[in-house]
Amino acid sequence: MEQVLPSRILQTAVEQLSLLPGVGRKTALRYALNLLRSDEEQVQGFTESISALKRDLKFCSMCHNISDTDMCPICSDQRRDRSTICVVSDIQDVMALENTQQYKGLYHVLGGVISPLDGVGPADLEIDSLVERVAAGGISEVILAISPTMEGDTTCFYIYRKLAPYDVKVTLLARGVAVGEDLEYTDEVTLGRSLLNRTPFDDK
Amino acid sequence: MEQVLPSRILQTAVEQLSLLPGVGRKTALRYALNLLRSDEEQVQGFTESISALKRDLKFCSMCHNISDTDMCPICSDQRRDRSTICVVSDIQDVMALENTQQYKGLYHVLGGVISPLDGVGPADLEIDSLVERVAAGGISEVILAISPTMEGDTTCFYIYRKLAPYDVKVTLLARGVAVGEDLEYTDEVTLGRSLLNRTPFDDK
Repeated sequence: MEQVLPSRILQTAVEQLSLLPGVGRKTALRYALNLLRSDEEQVQGFTESISALKRDLKFCSMCHNISDTDMCPICSDQRRDRSTICVVSDIQDVMALENTQQYKGLYHVLGGVISPLDGVGPADLEIDSLVERVAAGGISEVILAISPTMEGDTTCFYIYRKLAPYDVKVTLLARGVAVGEDLEYTDEVTLGRSLLNRTPFDDK
Repeated sequence: MEQVLPSRILQTAVEQLSLLPGVGRKTALRYALNLLRSDEEQVQGFTESISALKRDLKFCSMCHNISDTDMCPICSDQRRDRSTICVVSDIQDVMALENTQQYKGLYHVLGGVISPLDGVGPADLEIDSLVERVAAGGISEVILAISPTMEGDTTCFYIYRKLAPYDVKVTLLARGVAVGEDLEYTDEVTLGRSLLNRTPFDDK
């Protein structure tokens, strides 16, 4: 049921807060009343931090990850393996992969996947800049770490073709049964692939 | 697991967004990345609406409900019954009661309930201003629409005593079985009261 708000200002704030992903009117109202109860200073810190996001945040000129500086800490870290590029669709994927602590190379953030239904074509993504990085030389492997969906697979295939002229190994993330997952509930495509791509037993 | 964020600015925004009630770091990050993807104009509208909340929102000089003007639309509505005051603890309660469309009188927002454990005493609430409104005359009934909790009951009793010297009827919201509730799962105190305060069968 539509709630009657006693104030136009509150109404506007609730409408704006409901634009956040997964936030409905009830939650937005709770957020608004919570902000209203906070100190003026706290609210200023809150809005300032959000304005700063849009105003001050940069994108790394090399990998297009978000960064406070022109080149992100990962790209400017000389201890990392500069011959490997891991291609991901979004910023969150970089964070997820960094959290595994298994990867020491560089990244390349596409900014999405090819999805004709959403009007996203190859030109809307950072694919040309990836090809340029490979063409510049010094890259031995490009890992395509893109979600195995229809759009993701299309994007992988497109990039694979674009990189064909260069002397670079193109690899995909392994697809198989997730750790802790029950075989009974694993879909047949994943299970089939995990059988085809079985690995030698490692007793270490 | 603590996520490694690639930017201090993003980190600050995520920290600020996690201050919203019920928002953890993962949700805050989702909000931040969503805001980052929005237009500059949209983000400006968002932060401006929140700043306006704190800067421009007023509290009604009579009932202390939030309002864009010195006196709220309810208090200035001459068609409402000006001899009845419904006392509530919070702004949300006014909205909830207005949504029932069953009440045509005025309100009085206390701004909380008496709760010694949280350091909230009668002086921190709008109780004196309620007594003043009643003392000014013209009020025939004060409805205490406060949640039936320990603190709520204490607050009701305190107000009841404060209003004793005046010629005004003090009433409580009916307590009983909620509409749609299963008797089997109703607590015994509520069920006992609903039996004591049973009402004549109304076949209209």
